[in-house]
Amino acid sequence: MKTRTLIAATGLAMAMALGAGLVVAGSQEKMKVAYHLSEEGKVGFVLNNIRNHLKGVGGAENVEIILVVHGPALKAFHDLQAQPGVLDRMQALLKSGVAFNACGNTMRAQGVETDDLLDGFVRVDQGGVVRLAELQSEGYVYLRP
Amino acid sequence: MKTRTLIAATGLAMAMALGAGLVVAGSQEKMKVAYHLSEEGKVGFVLNNIRNHLKGVGGAENVEIILVVHGPALKAFHDLQAQPGVLDRMQALLKSGVAFNACGNTMRAQGVETDDLLDGFVRVDQGGVVRLAELQSEGYVYLRP
Amino acid sequence: MKTRTLIAATGLAMAMALGAGLVVAGSQEKMKVAYHLSEEGKVGFVLNNIRNHLKGVGGAENVEIILVVHGPALKAFHDLQAQPGVLDRMQALLKSGVAFNACGNTMRAQGVETDDLLDGFVRVDQGGVVRLAELQSEGYVYLRP
Repeated sequence: MKTRTLIAATGLAMAMALGAGLVVAGSQEKMKVAYHLSEEGKVGFVLNNIRNHLKGVGGAENVEIILVVHGPALKAFHDLQAQPGVLDRMQALLKSGVAFNACGNTMRAQGVETDDLLDGFVRVDQGGVVRLAELQSEGYVYLRP
Repeated sequence: MKTRTLIAATGLAMAMALGAGLVVAGSQEKMKVAYHLSEEGKVGFVLNNIRNHLKGVGGAENVEIILVVHGPALKAFHDLQAQPGVLDRMQALLKSGVAFNACGNTMRAQGVETDDLLDGFVRVDQGGVVRLAELQSEGYVYLRP
Repeated sequence: MKTRTLIAATGLAMAMALGAGLVVAGSQEKMKVAYHLSEEGKVGFVLNNIRNHLKGVGGAENVEIILVVHGPALKAFHDLQAQPGVLDRMQALLKSGVAFNACGNTMRAQGVETDDLLDGFVRVDQGGVVRLAELQSEGYVYLRP
């Protein structure tokens, strides 16, 4: 019975250690970062920031980045008016695994559908700000350059 | 005794499950969001963002939002110079349960008392930035559009 | 054996309480705050925000603040062109224990070395945005006035 008690205790201790282990492992997971972009004048800057972020952590395998675009900044990603520099940089970031989210409210206000944006955007119907709050609650750190 | 051991083990397992349950319940709590507004040119944009936030989560019952205003943006909420659009939108947000905090340092610098601001502001004497740090440490996610 | 079971159970309960205690102790630690500054026009404002932050929490002993500067804002801290107001305020904040981090990517782009910046900067080679993400993952709350 002493044995049984020890087994039970050991089982619990193992469960606890496992739990603790998961927490520790969690903190060593790939860093997750949500970038917030709303100002049209910041588009190039933020795309460069993300490129530098990837470089600074040693590559896309060490970070998971989602850029959420809403407000005036989304105009810079309209298919018809996007400048070559934006297109090139966005394509490079997509290749590195960066995800691009477009605010559904902004898209409606600007009269565009996903097809009217540069390729690679996912529309977030709940809205850009809700998306950014959700990402933070899922463990993403927040950067708003 | 085997039974007693099992009871003890079960008790502990339940305590652990309960602990885990609390964590899960915590993550299912009402989302708490602190909005940060300092730029005068962003006032209308941020008030719209918050309106969209409420809509995007399905209403005020699903989110707790506090807007902290400091710096030049607070001028747009001075009673005597607030534009109708600001007043209307603020009143609608107040009705939806959004809280408005005004930075005490900014109020002193701008020479206004709470009575000089649109109705509904709470003065935060520790200052807007300290308030925003406190809110984050209390589990609010941070949005600075 | 009942006794042994209780001892084992008590040991586990203590371990669990201890774990909970560590979490509580952690939440009572000195608040840690990472300030983000990228806009040249915001330099004076952010330095004032930090001064107010220190005052609002009752002094440097109650908070640990790191200011990360990248992008155009760093120009305001170049030794040769810094305005007296920036120099004075930075020196006062340094005396209060505020740490100043300069983005290595920005320094390269602006052609400056640490010696070319006002005294007190630490160069962060991983880049300002990576630094800000790291700080958040280390428990710093994020403020971007």
